Amino acid sequence: MTRAISVAIVAGLDDAATQLCNRELATDDVLWHAGSEWDPALAECEVIFGNIPVNWVPSLTALRWLQLESIGFENYATVTPELRARSIEVTNLRGLFSQPVAETALAGILALLRGIDQLVAATAEQRWATPEIRPGTELLSGRRVVVLGTGSIGAKLRRLFEAFDCTVVSYARESPTAELHTLAELDAALATASIVASCLPGTQQTVRIFDRERLALLGDRTILVNVGRGSAVDEAALCSSLAKNALGGAVLDVTEQEPLDADSPLWLAPRTILTQHTGGGYRDELRDKARRFLDNLAEWRVGKPLANTVNWEAGY
Amino acid sequence: MTRAISVAIVAGLDDAATQLCNRELATDDVLWHAGSEWDPALAECEVIFGNIPVNWVPSLTALRWLQLESIGFENYATVTPELRARSIEVTNLRGLFSQPVAETALAGILALLRGIDQLVAATAEQRWATPEIRPGTELLSGRRVVVLGTGSIGAKLRRLFEAFDCTVVSYARESPTAELHTLAELDAALATASIVASCLPGTQQTVRIFDRERLALLGDRTILVNVGRGSAVDEAALCSSLAKNALGGAVLDVTEQEPLDADSPLWLAPRTILTQHTGGGYRDELRDKARRFLDNLAEWRVGKPLANTVNWEAGY
Repeated sequence: MTRAISVAIVAGLDDAATQLCNRELATDDVLWHAGSEWDPALAECEVIFGNIPVNWVPSLTALRWLQLESIGFENYATVTPELRARSIEVTNLRGLFSQPVAETALAGILALLRGIDQLVAATAEQRWATPEIRPGTELLSGRRVVVLGTGSIGAKLRRLFEAFDCTVVSYARESPTAELHTLAELDAALATASIVASCLPGTQQTVRIFDRERLALLGDRTILVNVGRGSAVDEAALCSSLAKNALGGAVLDVTEQEPLDADSPLWLAPRTILTQHTGGGYRDELRDKARRFLDNLAEWRVGKPLANTVNWEAGY
Repeated sequence: MTRAISVAIVAGLDDAATQLCNRELATDDVLWHAGSEWDPALAECEVIFGNIPVNWVPSLTALRWLQLESIGFENYATVTPELRARSIEVTNLRGLFSQPVAETALAGILALLRGIDQLVAATAEQRWATPEIRPGTELLSGRRVVVLGTGSIGAKLRRLFEAFDCTVVSYARESPTAELHTLAELDAALATASIVASCLPGTQQTVRIFDRERLALLGDRTILVNVGRGSAVDEAALCSSLAKNALGGAVLDVTEQEPLDADSPLWLAPRTILTQHTGGGYRDELRDKARRFLDNLAEWRVGKPLANTVNWEAGY
């Protein structure tokens, strides 16, 4: 018999994922907890599944392992020293969202190029808009693409661009699979690219990497895609580039504020598809999140190393 | 010196395509003619570039070669015996639209699966709709796909589906590259597919191939794509299937009537992307159409066989 583990589940799950957890945690002490309100019983939990509020950390005195329900963990920057000092293991869901995010990126790019956004709007008005839309349609095929980031999303996205006969180069400071390693190399490539897709994690090096100066390197037919972190793009500069037709278009799954502020200029930015952080979604997303946690828990029970521990130094 | 050829250009061209023609036809007798009104000078033309009204044919007494500006030539069914009896060569633009059409098909499918249509509408209302849209998103990856037709569009589309890790089988009565050759084989495959994409030409065999009975074979999560001919689908039956949630969705580039009738039920069909026959479009479309005509004209001048002569028997 394995010992009972004291587990708190704070992750947002659906019925299927909940049933899966209940079945596999039948012999454990499970605390189901929704919302951000503190419950003293949490202090007893050795394992937590879900993105807890940062201010709980000091009170989680029994915590040994935190399984996040996301890839990003920038929110935990302020408590990182404490988590590390207490040797609390933290794992994320690296790789889980790569296929849906890559598909959403392609969906957004193809929507802009093939006029789907305009066609959806025209159809809603029961208007035949072929003469005005067809001459503006463009091809993805044959484009020069820069993908920033060589993680699981960047790798998938690169493979899909190549299937559309694009010429792709990747940027990453240290990855051997990237062609571009310095910002100077990146900037030279940006000037001749017509699709630029950021899949960068949120780190000190990536904050506002697309500042006003770098955005100015992009051509007026170029589409900027951001499926990494909202912090990578100076949104005011982006909106200004789009408004003055200095940039071809934008596909943004992530933004600096989410939900987007009501007064954000992005709502009205021309030639822009806002996918509103739906990119990671898919029908079995929550079941697969639970599956990842439960698989890691099986390792935890037998003292084996956990999958997808976060790299605090690298920030991903 | 080559002899001057008497050419009429009735195709719809833009400035770039017009300049290209003027440059290469500098020593020919060129009649530029817009619209469907008869001009007696047309009767003298040996070569015509463009989709002439059918009722002109009897009066085009000098015509030896007609270069269509389309792939389809169903409209000429009534004059086919005359064109053949007079040994008038007819060539089409087979293959020219395959990449844009395949990209529009993918754009429409990904839009439905990733919720782009809903996101575009929500963004237009400046509404953050992630909680309602994200749980309904789905993946293209891993799906079972049936592609009908193994022409240039079907072949390209198949390759793109495979890049998304779909399992693809093709239907074509006689093509060696198809796995399915009979309607019985097709019907068996339709029952387990979740994407069904018709790239069929307009022939006697393809009219209403998606009738009420065959549509009923498709699952309630299946997306029907039609980028071939509008005549392939019984639209009333399709709208009925969509309305009662018996079909997952539809992406239609072609419809029975184009422009779509104001009272067509397709305007209001749920989970449907109408791309309104924009699929073949791309920035250099008209220049490339002119290029195809001019390349064929170079062959014509020296008496060589023309590219893309239509196959009257097959209908494509």
